[in-house]
Amino acid sequence: MRRDTLALVDRRLLPDVGAGHETVAAAHHVYEHLIALWAPGAIEAAFDLGVFAALADGPATAEALAGRLEVDQRGMRVLLDALSAYDLIDRGSSAGGVRYGLRAGLRECLLPDGLYSLAGKVRYDRMLAWTAWRNLAQAVRGDGSAVPQHNQISTTEYESLVRGINFWAPPIVSILAGALRDRGWPAGPAAPAMLDVGCGTGLYSQLLLQQFPELTGVGFDVERIVSIARAQSERMDVGDRFQPLAIDFWQRDWGTGFDLVLFANIFHLQTPDSARELSIRASKALAGGGVVAIIDQIVDDRADADSVQDRFFRLFAASMLATGGGDAYPLSDYDEWLSVAGLRRAALVDTPMHRILLATHA
Amino acid sequence: MRRDTLALVDRRLLPDVGAGHETVAAAHHVYEHLIALWAPGAIEAAFDLGVFAALADGPATAEALAGRLEVDQRGMRVLLDALSAYDLIDRGSSAGGVRYGLRAGLRECLLPDGLYSLAGKVRYDRMLAWTAWRNLAQAVRGDGSAVPQHNQISTTEYESLVRGINFWAPPIVSILAGALRDRGWPAGPAAPAMLDVGCGTGLYSQLLLQQFPELTGVGFDVERIVSIARAQSERMDVGDRFQPLAIDFWQRDWGTGFDLVLFANIFHLQTPDSARELSIRASKALAGGGVVAIIDQIVDDRADADSVQDRFFRLFAASMLATGGGDAYPLSDYDEWLSVAGLRRAALVDTPMHRILLATHA
Repeated sequence: MRRDTLALVDRRLLPDVGAGHETVAAAHHVYEHLIALWAPGAIEAAFDLGVFAALADGPATAEALAGRLEVDQRGMRVLLDALSAYDLIDRGSSAGGVRYGLRAGLRECLLPDGLYSLAGKVRYDRMLAWTAWRNLAQAVRGDGSAVPQHNQISTTEYESLVRGINFWAPPIVSILAGALRDRGWPAGPAAPAMLDVGCGTGLYSQLLLQQFPELTGVGFDVERIVSIARAQSERMDVGDRFQPLAIDFWQRDWGTGFDLVLFANIFHLQTPDSARELSIRASKALAGGGVVAIIDQIVDDRADADSVQDRFFRLFAASMLATGGGDAYPLSDYDEWLSVAGLRRAALVDTPMHRILLATHA
Repeated sequence: MRRDTLALVDRRLLPDVGAGHETVAAAHHVYEHLIALWAPGAIEAAFDLGVFAALADGPATAEALAGRLEVDQRGMRVLLDALSAYDLIDRGSSAGGVRYGLRAGLRECLLPDGLYSLAGKVRYDRMLAWTAWRNLAQAVRGDGSAVPQHNQISTTEYESLVRGINFWAPPIVSILAGALRDRGWPAGPAAPAMLDVGCGTGLYSQLLLQQFPELTGVGFDVERIVSIARAQSERMDVGDRFQPLAIDFWQRDWGTGFDLVLFANIFHLQTPDSARELSIRASKALAGGGVVAIIDQIVDDRADADSVQDRFFRLFAASMLATGGGDAYPLSDYDEWLSVAGLRRAALVDTPMHRILLATHA
């Protein structure tokens, strides 16, 4: 699964001398970026056609799968070969011909129902991402009519997306829990209380509740999402300690005395003004000795860093531009918003595709 | 420019223990494939807006570029940051703020007019690829109405594509020339003659003519493409030795006595029947001791090979399915077509994104 095993150009065979050799090598490099379109195309087609679900019953030939899914035999063979080229399914020859099988580790994320299934993300992309990215130039021009505004996407689309990015949570929560413990959190003898602002499916809270058996939590989100969060809390065996509430967190009071105020993927959706407002509200809700944890695409602008995180964050910002709303804000902006709210940054920790900013009262 | 420097997931931070850790790691892997859509989106938007052409005048800030190209300042900054995340432009801080610059090696392939410019490929993708790949499932179903047939694409689209893939030729011709020399080609004392069937811009012939000063060549293609080939031959200083002819190579006689019959990216467009027919015509046109050179996506089916080439070929087959017509045929099919024509394979040589099959009279 190392990225470099998926190169589509055999670079060893590119000439390193001769007229224009640098341009030719560069063109191969850019071409490889251009055909990156093929990966989501192949994966999403397989979702659409039910290929992964069919392969969950066991390895099969292209002919057998084509018959079962009522598609063209050659088309099925070509699609399965493409998925194997992306290391997503296994391809093996046997006496009965070439057979294709679902990879064990990939099974849960390619099937529709699992906790870490990408099906929701795929559904969202089918509805929004292709058109948005095909029309990115219009968004850069500032042509708002071309961009689907985030708060205009339908509840169905938002629901798809929010479940489809559950997979981000486990490594983040594992790293967050370690960072909190390193800081001696929770500080007091009483059972700690957590507030999860814009909780989505509540997965960040649910995983934290599993890590801290004394912890209880409250989550705020819109009604339809809150019902997903409630059901998922039950399945995660923390339903008695997590209370997802249908609350507009811009209008309602948040309460006080929380030992942890959590924002998972909330700040990147804000304008600078609304981000400042969230910080102020978090500061008011935070108990003495409590911690605000902001999980987000926080660009580290303290150096000319070329980290995996900063690279992803800069691309994520373009995704937000394409699909409407939000930005990947630099650390200096976060520091300013915290400062206005009487908070200060205590730590900044890397995770696979995010950073966690921990803050306390100043 | 190594592929593994472009990972968007910091894999070192993925947990290797805990419930569902394999699924979570796999989901990050698949997600990275899904967001590969972002790369062509960002690059094509930059082409559309003239960003590369503007940067060719020298490094600039996002604000200056936004003013010059009359686009939104924030949009321009986000797009430039995304391009820098893909290692396509340089991003550096200076006293006047962050400045962005075109990378020297990338300059020629990102500007519209160069011999190895990708502009034509980008134009083709804008017209066809997004819709085709978004609708791949329909093509797999065998719904022909969803697929733009190759011979139905307009001359403009074909012209864009044929110029936009010139960059493939130099490493291929360099490797082909070496393989021919290794075989003692050309064999006789007379000046060798070459036939380039479906020559496109004629670049493969033109580069070979530069390598073999005694060589002369004839190319067949449709009228509009032939005029591109003529102009390019002049620019490549081989106009007096290469004659591109507007000839339908299915209808007209090819002549005889050619020491080299070249097919560059022609066979993958064929059906098995038309591929067999091309082999037979090539055999008739070939001089004694002559060589047929087939440059194409030739899948090596002799082993469970997981080469970069076979992986690319299998994805290219899906591209052909999506955009209509063609396939990446296995070596065993080529061997059969050659055999029917009284030819036999003499060598199979890897190039960065193709293989070269050399054949002689059996």
